[in-house]
Amino acid sequence: MTRVQQIGEDALIRRLAGLLPSRQDVVAGIGDDCAVVRTGRHDAFDWLLKSDPVIEGVHFARDAAPGAIGRKAVGRVLSDLAAMGGEPLWALINLVAPPDTPVKRLEGIYRGAASLAKRHGMAIVGGDTSRGKTLELHVFAVGRVPRGCAVPRSGARAGDVLYVTGVLGGSGEGRHLKFEPRIKEGGWLCAQGWATAMMDVSDGLATDLRRMTAASGTGAVLDVAAIPVSAAARRCRDTRSSLEHALADGEDFELLLAVPARKAVAFEAAWRRSFTLRCSRIGVMTKRSGVIELKDGKSCVPLTCRGYEHFVTRADS
Amino acid sequence: MTRVQQIGEDALIRRLAGLLPSRQDVVAGIGDDCAVVRTGRHDAFDWLLKSDPVIEGVHFARDAAPGAIGRKAVGRVLSDLAAMGGEPLWALINLVAPPDTPVKRLEGIYRGAASLAKRHGMAIVGGDTSRGKTLELHVFAVGRVPRGCAVPRSGARAGDVLYVTGVLGGSGEGRHLKFEPRIKEGGWLCAQGWATAMMDVSDGLATDLRRMTAASGTGAVLDVAAIPVSAAARRCRDTRSSLEHALADGEDFELLLAVPARKAVAFEAAWRRSFTLRCSRIGVMTKRSGVIELKDGKSCVPLTCRGYEHFVTRADS
Repeated sequence: MTRVQQIGEDALIRRLAGLLPSRQDVVAGIGDDCAVVRTGRHDAFDWLLKSDPVIEGVHFARDAAPGAIGRKAVGRVLSDLAAMGGEPLWALINLVAPPDTPVKRLEGIYRGAASLAKRHGMAIVGGDTSRGKTLELHVFAVGRVPRGCAVPRSGARAGDVLYVTGVLGGSGEGRHLKFEPRIKEGGWLCAQGWATAMMDVSDGLATDLRRMTAASGTGAVLDVAAIPVSAAARRCRDTRSSLEHALADGEDFELLLAVPARKAVAFEAAWRRSFTLRCSRIGVMTKRSGVIELKDGKSCVPLTCRGYEHFVTRADS
Repeated sequence: MTRVQQIGEDALIRRLAGLLPSRQDVVAGIGDDCAVVRTGRHDAFDWLLKSDPVIEGVHFARDAAPGAIGRKAVGRVLSDLAAMGGEPLWALINLVAPPDTPVKRLEGIYRGAASLAKRHGMAIVGGDTSRGKTLELHVFAVGRVPRGCAVPRSGARAGDVLYVTGVLGGSGEGRHLKFEPRIKEGGWLCAQGWATAMMDVSDGLATDLRRMTAASGTGAVLDVAAIPVSAAARRCRDTRSSLEHALADGEDFELLLAVPARKAVAFEAAWRRSFTLRCSRIGVMTKRSGVIELKDGKSCVPLTCRGYEHFVTRADS
């Protein structure tokens, strides 16, 4: 009997996705950061739908500050909306809590959720509550993009230049509870039409770049010297290098995007005029489908490390 | 320190709801079966948003058939859409599963979910998966109603006649896994404009009628002889009467609605022409805000029993 931990998340989702009903108004279903649906023939917008869980012992530790838990719950779906260039509109929250949970703790969680949602113009309009053994929030969000403008992860072509915002790695040191969803940057990228493909880095650059190349039918070469390793990753003292942390830790919630090579210089200049946030040129898409390599000076080796795997138990951070 | 189990679900939701941000395009937020949002000035439809959890040990037993679990997860949100007269469109599913869950079990769950969704024309377009200690599904659904036509639970007036579809009580004997969401009936009620108020009976008639009267600012008198007690409730052999089961068991997922008295005869005739499903006239709304009475022949006593309370632990059925 095959168990979930033997096949992993991506294979599980592929098996389940094949069972599910669709409709003609579904522009993009399972397999991207958000689903995209279209409500009318003459509508100016497409609608983005996304849900994400945060679970005690998986996405946050028992002693995490309540406000940070709520902030992360809302931040995760905002990051997914940002990854397709979306404007956040409305959210629902399903709360699961043990009956002996202090009401004040839940109020703190909802204050954190409310604060980040409000800052990005998103209303929280409902949800449901239930008792359960573990404290959990499941946030469901609706956003929108100008019709036909959602940026998929599947649009990259060989030759496109790869960029990532911010810095990567070591998020377990605290950043996984305090990240800024890149709503403003994602909306700008969508409106200006720079990116051929975009996604958020939630399970580590190694895993998420594999997903983008698989969806786009490309390969990629990463330039080791260009990967923006965070100070937190450099501080990690364990058996893994800071580069490995940057490639595999996950929960960076930065944007990974591909830009056509002929636009790269103009894009970089436009980015610098618009944002102080770093956007690093980290590599290039190639024709060698499914092959991801790390280029370090003159040597070029296959990327072997993997990011976060949801159904393989590891120490909680 | 106040804990959730001391204040209960309704008070918890009131406390949390006050913290949350809204937007101008939110027609109805927390406090009804679904949230109602409006996307454009000239849109022909309003949009309904709803999320519901099903959790092992709370909403289903460990040995429940996989297909029935998925069916219930989708059925719960469909019932909420039906309660406002909505047409189902798209859903997302968040899955939480222990890593040793057999993949076949999850496929069975998703087949059950897919089958019911498909029958009601609803696509399942995404979601997320995570490991956790307990098997859970959180379903988020989007539906629509003609603009301004969503039936709230707050619209009832003194004198309106109360109806409930189907039969009540004893759902723990199996019906809680096999109920039919009243999509067709809810859509018909919405399109024809019969109901001033409507909701689904998910926590028991006693609790849900209290919610409807509180939202509408009315009281109610229930006619004991008219309450449609299910055969399953009559079969229950415990300290509670079959009437108490019908009032308090919960998970009936029938529609509770109020119709103006002057339309009652015409409504009943139209219902009989359209459906074979029973729709029982069970009482009337009164002016005595918050007072719910049970009328049994000539005697009239206050309704004391209560329905399902989410944060008070009881034996799982």
